[in-house]
Amino acid sequence: MEIFINPEKATWIEIVKRPVFDYRQLETKVSSILDDVKSNGDAAIKKYTAQFDGVVLNDLAVTENEMAAAALQVDEDLRVAIEVAKNNIAAFHASQTEAVIKIETIDGVVCWRKSVAIEKVGLYIPGGTAPLFSTLLMLGIPAVLAGCKEIVVCTPPGKNGEINPVILYVAHLIGIKNMYKVGGVQAIAAMAYGTNSIPKVNKIFGPGNQYVTAAKQLVNATGVAIDMPAGPSELAVYADETCNPSFVAADLLSQAEHGADSQVLLVASSLSIVEMVHDEIEKQLPVLPRSAIAAQALQNSLAVVMENVAGAFELLNAYAPEHLIIASENAEYLAEKVVNAGSVFMGNYSPESAGDYASGTNHTLPTNGHAKAYSGVSLDSFVKKITFQQINKAGIKNIGRAVQVMAAAEGLAAHKNAVSIRLNEINK
Amino acid sequence: MEIFINPEKATWIEIVKRPVFDYRQLETKVSSILDDVKSNGDAAIKKYTAQFDGVVLNDLAVTENEMAAAALQVDEDLRVAIEVAKNNIAAFHASQTEAVIKIETIDGVVCWRKSVAIEKVGLYIPGGTAPLFSTLLMLGIPAVLAGCKEIVVCTPPGKNGEINPVILYVAHLIGIKNMYKVGGVQAIAAMAYGTNSIPKVNKIFGPGNQYVTAAKQLVNATGVAIDMPAGPSELAVYADETCNPSFVAADLLSQAEHGADSQVLLVASSLSIVEMVHDEIEKQLPVLPRSAIAAQALQNSLAVVMENVAGAFELLNAYAPEHLIIASENAEYLAEKVVNAGSVFMGNYSPESAGDYASGTNHTLPTNGHAKAYSGVSLDSFVKKITFQQINKAGIKNIGRAVQVMAAAEGLAAHKNAVSIRLNEINK
Repeated sequence: MEIFINPEKATWIEIVKRPVFDYRQLETKVSSILDDVKSNGDAAIKKYTAQFDGVVLNDLAVTENEMAAAALQVDEDLRVAIEVAKNNIAAFHASQTEAVIKIETIDGVVCWRKSVAIEKVGLYIPGGTAPLFSTLLMLGIPAVLAGCKEIVVCTPPGKNGEINPVILYVAHLIGIKNMYKVGGVQAIAAMAYGTNSIPKVNKIFGPGNQYVTAAKQLVNATGVAIDMPAGPSELAVYADETCNPSFVAADLLSQAEHGADSQVLLVASSLSIVEMVHDEIEKQLPVLPRSAIAAQALQNSLAVVMENVAGAFELLNAYAPEHLIIASENAEYLAEKVVNAGSVFMGNYSPESAGDYASGTNHTLPTNGHAKAYSGVSLDSFVKKITFQQINKAGIKNIGRAVQVMAAAEGLAAHKNAVSIRLNEINK
Repeated sequence: MEIFINPEKATWIEIVKRPVFDYRQLETKVSSILDDVKSNGDAAIKKYTAQFDGVVLNDLAVTENEMAAAALQVDEDLRVAIEVAKNNIAAFHASQTEAVIKIETIDGVVCWRKSVAIEKVGLYIPGGTAPLFSTLLMLGIPAVLAGCKEIVVCTPPGKNGEINPVILYVAHLIGIKNMYKVGGVQAIAAMAYGTNSIPKVNKIFGPGNQYVTAAKQLVNATGVAIDMPAGPSELAVYADETCNPSFVAADLLSQAEHGADSQVLLVASSLSIVEMVHDEIEKQLPVLPRSAIAAQALQNSLAVVMENVAGAFELLNAYAPEHLIIASENAEYLAEKVVNAGSVFMGNYSPESAGDYASGTNHTLPTNGHAKAYSGVSLDSFVKKITFQQINKAGIKNIGRAVQVMAAAEGLAAHKNAVSIRLNEINK
């Protein structure tokens, strides 16, 4: 960990910068897979599944029996844990339901918004070394709550042609029926364009490797909505003298174990805190199964001493972390200073991993500084907010003149006429 | 207008399709301007302003004096009209403010979302034949309401080097101070990358021609947020026997006058309604100043007779129009059937032009079928919703076991350890 002490603002640009990955370099390769699936559907998908996942499949769809049977393979312990997470995630996301509020902006003109579920959504759940069933909870629960009619889940099969039973169990538990054994670029293509087996969707959610990310960006440019731009996971910790350095070290390591490209930033109120955290990392790191990955991520990570609290949060806002832990007994006061972050963990007993799994907040969050303009996934992500206006005769008399004058000033006579013809009818 | 009568579902794909415009064909040209502005800043902007707008500028920024002086050039009538619009737009968008709701998902675990303004936003207001000051109202009012700290407005200068006084007046009225005389791709580049004169922003809003749209898509792919993908404006009207055909004709014409590429779709409950509307169009069209443009747009437009109401709305939802007028005395009942639309205008006295200017709803809406997954601009568009969680010792005891078990099942030992180290401390 490189250490900066009260760095000048001019150097912040170095501290807050992220590794640049230009997805355009993958464009040719990814586009050719997208085009192939668009033209050849299931046949292309099966070809790439054989090539990349090493398994030949007859059917892409998971059967109801496979889903129901999965529960028997999941430990009681894990089922209980998933139940806790599910309840908390559902409770928090249900609280995001927006009531219709009708506003009479002027006498006779009533306006409102109504949240209507996106009809067809696709959830991509990566495979790889571990089954990310937590991501299925985070995407599937709000999709079901929002009332999306068709929820399609794609996840790559293992070499045995099966999907990890925990993922199947979670899907079944939360009420998802359309699940397909397909991963990578070919999964994004299937959901973007549709195939005989896999329905086309309106919006695609979910994390993935660089190829999946590139594929999502490419289909997004052609009109399929996506959750948000993706990048390596990140954690910033603000730690002051009321922190517990061993907790801070554990939190930094939990982020670092995600991958060698994980981003970790420690901002501390004194050098001694950085030193104590560093010592704790040295103690905790060696016993971790993924210590090699974590060590590599930590090499690219930074610690910054900011003796001035306002400056510390200015720097953190400039960084705009995906996750921000405020490791302080003063977290309630300090959290008011947060302007840019995906999700904030307040106090010494709020580890990031709580939010990754079970506190109730969503773990699909903006990375790479996107927290300056993007929100994490929420119930909002699965609805459109349609506006309505209901204008009666009194209403059009009240705003008619304004519309006529403004339309005329913009040179749009037919816009004006649409009001005039109504006012003439009323005044007849 | 081509007429379809109770078309089979298999033919709907032809009815709902939009003209395809591939922005990638502009990519080379647009990218070179973006890159030039990125490298050469204001000098490049002045070069393109001379080239495309035909005016050589010394200063890009509009002065405070220019803004204050503009009011004197705007008619009293128009100032009153703008005031009405401003009040209604402000009232409706203020109602979208989201209160913080703290949820205790489980004892000791409190989660909430807080809407925080995006710090820096850029609003693009096109120039061209008419000054689109209404767009500045629609984007500027929610930006100010949201509390965005830096609101940058770019709009092309006329050949005299000035900005239309109505646009300046509106900016001044709603409290916008940072205004720049720059249009086209160079304006998008300036706001995406920043120059000496023009600040870099986090999110870019506003309509524009195909070059501006392509530029927004390209900077979006490199990490600058944008409001939504853009396309030609659209109107669908559902008209039944309780409609007023002359009103429907006026509404269709108000959409058609936008441009030759405007999309108009009439869905009627009987052929006689289509015929009556057609006769009214013939009457109203010739006297319009933009009749040539409107006539061209109408040539590409469609009328569909759907005798079955459910089928009519199924078709309209498949089309997912930017604007949908329900020209019926039964609008309240019928509006419940709307699943995909940007904004809905209910009843015979709710013309689209009311929403374009003054009802209070936003007129920046998803086109091109994007209403299936995107919402129009609202207060939400100018904020991020940051999640917070505050977990106390009881809370981490309540969810700790779930986090440990799930993290272990996902193979993330350090995630588990971040909880274990806290539980150990509590149980010491």
